[in-house]
Amino acid sequence: MRKTVNMARKCMFFVHFFMWLSVVDSASQKPNIIIMMMDDMGWGDLGILGQPAKETPHLDQMAAEGTLMTDFYAANPLCSPSRAALLSGRLPIRNGFYTTNQHARNAYVPQFLDGGIQDGEVLLPELLRTVGYKSKIIGKWHLGHQTQYLPLKHGFDEFFGSPNCHFGPYNNIGTPNIPVYKNQDMAGRYYDDFIITKAGESNLTQLYIKEALSFIEAQHIASEPFLLYWVPDATHTPLYASKSFLGKSQRGLYGDAVQELDNGVGQILQKLKDMGIDQNTFAFFTSDNGAALVGKFHGGSNGPFLCGKETTFEGGMREPAIAWWPGTIKAGQVSHQLGSIMDLFTTSLSIAGLKPPSDRIIDGTDLLPHLINGTVDLNKPIYYYRGNEMMAVRIGLYKAHYWTWTNSISEFLERGVNFCRGENVTGVMTHEQTNHSSSPLLFHLGRDPGEKYPISNSTQEYKDVIIEIMNVVKDHKDKLIPGEPQLNICDAAVQNWAPPGCEKLGDCLPIPKSNPYKCGWPH
Amino acid sequence: MRKTVNMARKCMFFVHFFMWLSVVDSASQKPNIIIMMMDDMGWGDLGILGQPAKETPHLDQMAAEGTLMTDFYAANPLCSPSRAALLSGRLPIRNGFYTTNQHARNAYVPQFLDGGIQDGEVLLPELLRTVGYKSKIIGKWHLGHQTQYLPLKHGFDEFFGSPNCHFGPYNNIGTPNIPVYKNQDMAGRYYDDFIITKAGESNLTQLYIKEALSFIEAQHIASEPFLLYWVPDATHTPLYASKSFLGKSQRGLYGDAVQELDNGVGQILQKLKDMGIDQNTFAFFTSDNGAALVGKFHGGSNGPFLCGKETTFEGGMREPAIAWWPGTIKAGQVSHQLGSIMDLFTTSLSIAGLKPPSDRIIDGTDLLPHLINGTVDLNKPIYYYRGNEMMAVRIGLYKAHYWTWTNSISEFLERGVNFCRGENVTGVMTHEQTNHSSSPLLFHLGRDPGEKYPISNSTQEYKDVIIEIMNVVKDHKDKLIPGEPQLNICDAAVQNWAPPGCEKLGDCLPIPKSNPYKCGWPH
Repeated sequence: MRKTVNMARKCMFFVHFFMWLSVVDSASQKPNIIIMMMDDMGWGDLGILGQPAKETPHLDQMAAEGTLMTDFYAANPLCSPSRAALLSGRLPIRNGFYTTNQHARNAYVPQFLDGGIQDGEVLLPELLRTVGYKSKIIGKWHLGHQTQYLPLKHGFDEFFGSPNCHFGPYNNIGTPNIPVYKNQDMAGRYYDDFIITKAGESNLTQLYIKEALSFIEAQHIASEPFLLYWVPDATHTPLYASKSFLGKSQRGLYGDAVQELDNGVGQILQKLKDMGIDQNTFAFFTSDNGAALVGKFHGGSNGPFLCGKETTFEGGMREPAIAWWPGTIKAGQVSHQLGSIMDLFTTSLSIAGLKPPSDRIIDGTDLLPHLINGTVDLNKPIYYYRGNEMMAVRIGLYKAHYWTWTNSISEFLERGVNFCRGENVTGVMTHEQTNHSSSPLLFHLGRDPGEKYPISNSTQEYKDVIIEIMNVVKDHKDKLIPGEPQLNICDAAVQNWAPPGCEKLGDCLPIPKSNPYKCGWPH
Repeated sequence: MRKTVNMARKCMFFVHFFMWLSVVDSASQKPNIIIMMMDDMGWGDLGILGQPAKETPHLDQMAAEGTLMTDFYAANPLCSPSRAALLSGRLPIRNGFYTTNQHARNAYVPQFLDGGIQDGEVLLPELLRTVGYKSKIIGKWHLGHQTQYLPLKHGFDEFFGSPNCHFGPYNNIGTPNIPVYKNQDMAGRYYDDFIITKAGESNLTQLYIKEALSFIEAQHIASEPFLLYWVPDATHTPLYASKSFLGKSQRGLYGDAVQELDNGVGQILQKLKDMGIDQNTFAFFTSDNGAALVGKFHGGSNGPFLCGKETTFEGGMREPAIAWWPGTIKAGQVSHQLGSIMDLFTTSLSIAGLKPPSDRIIDGTDLLPHLINGTVDLNKPIYYYRGNEMMAVRIGLYKAHYWTWTNSISEFLERGVNFCRGENVTGVMTHEQTNHSSSPLLFHLGRDPGEKYPISNSTQEYKDVIIEIMNVVKDHKDKLIPGEPQLNICDAAVQNWAPPGCEKLGDCLPIPKSNPYKCGWPH
């Protein structure tokens, strides 16, 4: 009996000793960084941002413990360019994630796309590595799936997830199923090894949560600062949720996926608290572009904003955004500071005590002063690009559309592709690419967040505002040197036929003859 | 010196004595009831419900201290019928606040309307009076402006506000300016005595706040339970705000008005806390119908919901709703219980220990059990009427449209009257009155709160659901005995020419010859 008591005391001593050690460690250690970016989740999908079902208790709690940024933007209305912009701190037009095949077209990285992130681009994990950070990406990469483009070639130390969207199932003959990687090697393929059923059941989000918790724990034990880039994709079609979440939301499968991700965010933040490193960790939640409102029912919400994914209206690029850092960022704040996912690059560097590269234009700015002091910089512009064209710009509460376009009338009428389901603002949601550059369409997003009431160009307000905006745009365009476009060339031979590690799994598929062609981007 | 100290001690004794007395009083006294109903404020106008400017800190706080009802409805998409329904607990089709001049038309009480609330209708303050409540209405009445229809004839003890909307200014020749009443007598007229400038400056909301605070204080001193029906109208066109709020919101004048009202709600709840009667007061916040989205810029928001005021889509009737009763209703709850402003009638009676009248059908049900225990009754239907027609019904998460109509194509095209600015759901937002009764349009408001994706009537889901709904509707219609319609007859002679008290003010205008006619309701 006495032996047991002594043993217990000894244990308690060690527990306390290690707790003390961990406090000392975390105090002297650089802050950890967690970027949680969702896939196609809309601004209006969070309870705190007005989704009527109010099914995101953990995200609402995260906002209550941190700062909710109401005016935060993706760098593009589509996934790959937005993700490349986040990790490089640069607009897609600069980092090469755009196409010049056609004017103002959305392009991304399907598996038949040849291009990817260039070695000349310096990504966030590469820089963080120089000051001792270990970086892991969990989820969808989307910056190129050929070997030279994969995450471990661009600064990440660990990778669990896939290089492309989880489209499928494919027959592995005309098209291979998308691989899921464990670090540098494939661990299997979607639908073959990582199942998503027709009903939308999959345990992928659970795997992504577990990977995150294990990584946090391992880094804590190793006393190394970390970047966790958590990019699950359950809210991107084909939607999925694990068995215990399926059918639980009043919003249908999309809501099930949101609830599971919300639960994951809750677990990740709780883990930080449990390990006592919450006060030394900056966590940010956002999404890569607006919710998709295409013809078929999907389920995401862009709240009161116009249109969705693929467009440069607010619904296409305005994102939910929560910054969290207990003890450093005050709890329960709302910030109207204009922000962009490119700012996460510069902000993360700042947190790690680093400056962004000085040999190139970096679009991201450091949000930390605003998050800590509650200040607002009214002069920070937001650029809305679609492919190679600056479609719109926002300065303060004003947004000027230089070009408008949803998609072609034939795609809209004949194929039923509709990025603005249920909406119709005449002269604004145009089915022709319309150039307003000489007299941009102007909206006041405070009075009119839904972009439904253009300010007449005969008003004094218009005249005063548009001059300022035009000056900013002129300066932006004068300094712009577009990067080499990476989303121009497609080739069936570059698909995921034989990803690294396929030999070990006996899962290498025959590679067809290369036949590069100019990709066609329909919208 | 010692004398002063003794005096101070004596004072402190009395202060403590009266504080104790007040606690005893409030414990033994029936709970007070405060119904705060806004005018044309939309579901999406509250920060907590996703308005991007997040400018309603006091309402958000009220929700944090109480229960936010996400699925709460007006009884009609227009003011007068909705208000009559609240105070009578009955649908407008029963209490007479509708027209039979044309099919499915919105009607209300402009000052040339002859009708008003009938003596046969039993209003909430009449019933509360039987158990010692004193009732005051502050703001817009809208249940009839002829003498026999005024609030003091229908159970209210005090009245500060006006019988009609604050439209104007009029020239007092063809049309008199609307009177503002102080109890049974007019105290002046809008624009003549109670100024609203062209720029939208007016101190009216401040007067309404002061009146509320004084009434609460007076009732507390008198140790009498009270009903405060606080119905300010600054968010109804012409919009207004007082000088210190003007120009402060990022949302323009509408937002200024919202901020001032939000501030008023904060002051009212704070007053209850300061007087120590918050735990003995039930307060409810809501609005009379959805935000107006008519052609001209207005500024209100219905969040993710379709269309606005005047329509039976969600944007026309879904309302912000917060129930607050510290110590009785738990803090920080969200309730998806379907509710209606008619429930405030029955709920208020329940709070006062009363049962609703048993000699007539009462549509309102008691929300208190749901608010206190967090339960949800899935079988409670919500009926969406427009004039004499049941346009739609909601049961659980399903909504079936039996009739659809926005407004006539000529009004829409020729006059630019648009109740759904920027929206277009084909086959749903019809410009013809369209009868779907044999196969109602069905929506799932959980998956599709914006009513953009009708469920195909060939699906099993449709077939299963529609049978249940049709049974409920059949039962409702079988039992329906429409009241005598009050909104049929108009007459320029019934306008506010010579309201009670006009002689004292020397403000009686000559009454023209009576010339009754059937009112024409354009939509």
